[in-house]
Amino acid sequence: MLDDRLSSLAVRIQARCIASGSRVVTVESCTGGLVGHALTTRPGSSGYYLGGMITYADTLKQDLAGVPAEMIVAHGAVSAQVAIAMADGARIRLGADIAVAVTGIAGPDGGSEAKPVGLTYVAVADARGTDVRRHTWTGDRAANQVDSAIAALELVLERVGE
Amino acid sequence: MLDDRLSSLAVRIQARCIASGSRVVTVESCTGGLVGHALTTRPGSSGYYLGGMITYADTLKQDLAGVPAEMIVAHGAVSAQVAIAMADGARIRLGADIAVAVTGIAGPDGGSEAKPVGLTYVAVADARGTDVRRHTWTGDRAANQVDSAIAALELVLERVGE
Repeated sequence: MLDDRLSSLAVRIQARCIASGSRVVTVESCTGGLVGHALTTRPGSSGYYLGGMITYADTLKQDLAGVPAEMIVAHGAVSAQVAIAMADGARIRLGADIAVAVTGIAGPDGGSEAKPVGLTYVAVADARGTDVRRHTWTGDRAANQVDSAIAALELVLERVGE
Repeated sequence: MLDDRLSSLAVRIQARCIASGSRVVTVESCTGGLVGHALTTRPGSSGYYLGGMITYADTLKQDLAGVPAEMIVAHGAVSAQVAIAMADGARIRLGADIAVAVTGIAGPDGGSEAKPVGLTYVAVADARGTDVRRHTWTGDRAANQVDSAIAALELVLERVGE
């Protein structure tokens, strides 16, 4: 069963986006599709959710979302720059009003001193611009994925102005 | 928490795909990202899972996965033809060894006499060809989405030859 906090956020986002006619797309790395799935657990989600990309491998961040390879080399796949580029790229390429992106290190492996396990960036883009936010979760892999998805949906909800 | 059956399938698929060097992608409609998320709940999933597409809207089935618009008009988005085209398109476009596709009517709305709620097609493609299978689930929306994701992962497991 989907986490209750994700279900609750999906309900609120759907009401706002259908009311405002905003079409939403997702582009996910560490959550692997959880953000999209959370949105589609609601009947009627096809009224605003178009779909998106799961850019788990860096090659897909480049090929699907259009993140420049040199940006990934310079800043790492888990960086504010890449989160912003994922959101901007997905929004433009998929013809959406709003795109939300997630990139992070869910763990238990893959962390470093500079970029610990749990480090996650979420970004939201619309025609007005792009916001990014940094989090560092301290749970296990499953909890970090859920917390990342919640942070992504909260950022959408802020943007659609509940 | 993720359904135990999905977790169990993800463990077995990961072991087989890493052993055989097979890179997997997903292309999902009615499950909205659940198949991808299930695969990424396992640490080490980046060793074989590249990511994929969530083609919830028909425009994304066309633009991302390359499903011909006239095929969707002729057969409907929930059809064996479209499931096969999603899997073939995603595999080629994303440069993967194996692609798995899901398209269905999760409900509670969207059904018809010819295509009832619960009707779902899953397809798997690799270099040897493409298989498609038809299911008709009888649960609620959440159960139908989980059953669809399970059917997709079972089809992958068959193909990788456990």
